[in-house]
Amino acid sequence: MPYPSQLLENAVGQFATLPGVGGKTALRYVLNLLRRPDAEVDAFADSIKTLKHEVLYCKVCHNISDTETCAICADIKRDKTTICVVENIRDVMAIEATQLYHGTYHVLGGIISPIDGIGPADIEIDSLIARAAMPQTQEIIFALPTTMEGDTTCFYIFRKLAQLNKLKITTIARGVAIGNELQYTDEITLGKSLLNRTNFSGN
Amino acid sequence: MPYPSQLLENAVGQFATLPGVGGKTALRYVLNLLRRPDAEVDAFADSIKTLKHEVLYCKVCHNISDTETCAICADIKRDKTTICVVENIRDVMAIEATQLYHGTYHVLGGIISPIDGIGPADIEIDSLIARAAMPQTQEIIFALPTTMEGDTTCFYIFRKLAQLNKLKITTIARGVAIGNELQYTDEITLGKSLLNRTNFSGN
Repeated sequence: MPYPSQLLENAVGQFATLPGVGGKTALRYVLNLLRRPDAEVDAFADSIKTLKHEVLYCKVCHNISDTETCAICADIKRDKTTICVVENIRDVMAIEATQLYHGTYHVLGGIISPIDGIGPADIEIDSLIARAAMPQTQEIIFALPTTMEGDTTCFYIFRKLAQLNKLKITTIARGVAIGNELQYTDEITLGKSLLNRTNFSGN
Repeated sequence: MPYPSQLLENAVGQFATLPGVGGKTALRYVLNLLRRPDAEVDAFADSIKTLKHEVLYCKVCHNISDTETCAICADIKRDKTTICVVENIRDVMAIEATQLYHGTYHVLGGIISPIDGIGPADIEIDSLIARAAMPQTQEIIFALPTTMEGDTTCFYIFRKLAQLNKLKITTIARGVAIGNELQYTDEITLGKSLLNRTNFSGN
């Protein structure tokens, strides 16, 4: 489409670089912003600049944070004996939303993926091993994606951790999701849910 | 969802104000930006600031423009006897993309909508009447939405223009879209397409 203004085309081009956003959606976003007062547009633009320039990553778990140590790692009420290993901060937010986990996290910042050129040294594995080796650590929970890359990453870390010879190493349960019908569940998930069946406790 | 960082929450909140964007999509956008180099994020943020602060609106047709008079109004090859009246700049871009219109535009910047508190004085109607009254103007084409508000706006402008007593006033054809099947076309469109049938010219 021919843009009536170079400035408009530039802004639309920038928004079209966002994941899943095409030219028409980008134009819709930009025209929406254009209708707002100057101060609102500045606040919008500054929010992302400030985030990029000022955000920190927790020196313990590598979760995104406003402070050197994130709120979870700094919380004395969180159980420091357990570390849940996740791919990215969105996974932390998803688990936090369940309000059922009271341990700490370790954000790898990616998973091992030779096809994308991501090796063990590119993600936060060494710092995880160092944390796991600390005396208070008792359990490592894997909460990584069930893809080939996720499995590779789990296995790589598992072998490193096994050398420490003191840890309980677990992975989150895979099974039929709550509310899903058996007939529509894929065979691999259903098979896993049978193999990993748990004692019926009535709740 | 609990955000691990206030800066992140702020940026996500800003992106969630875009039309059709919820919290999860906004988070996806922000995390994508966060992974980019500083310079790219700054370019992204600055593109929208620069647009907002520096963009102009053509003093003739009120289309968005980088200059006082937009490229279309300034183009000596465009037919200045014809003015196509549209609601917003997206409509200009859509018509320009057809490459079949060689006249000029008039961007109203909205349509009369009492329910939203938009009256005739809030949109660029007076400037349209002034342009229509100029000696060179011969035809006004309405290309406004076929909603109650669009029809109201057409009718209001039509009555003002009729007083000038010299203009050809037309509206774009409404009918069955190219490629659409008759059986799936709504009755009003199909009825209009019969009433406004045109001579068959073989092309």
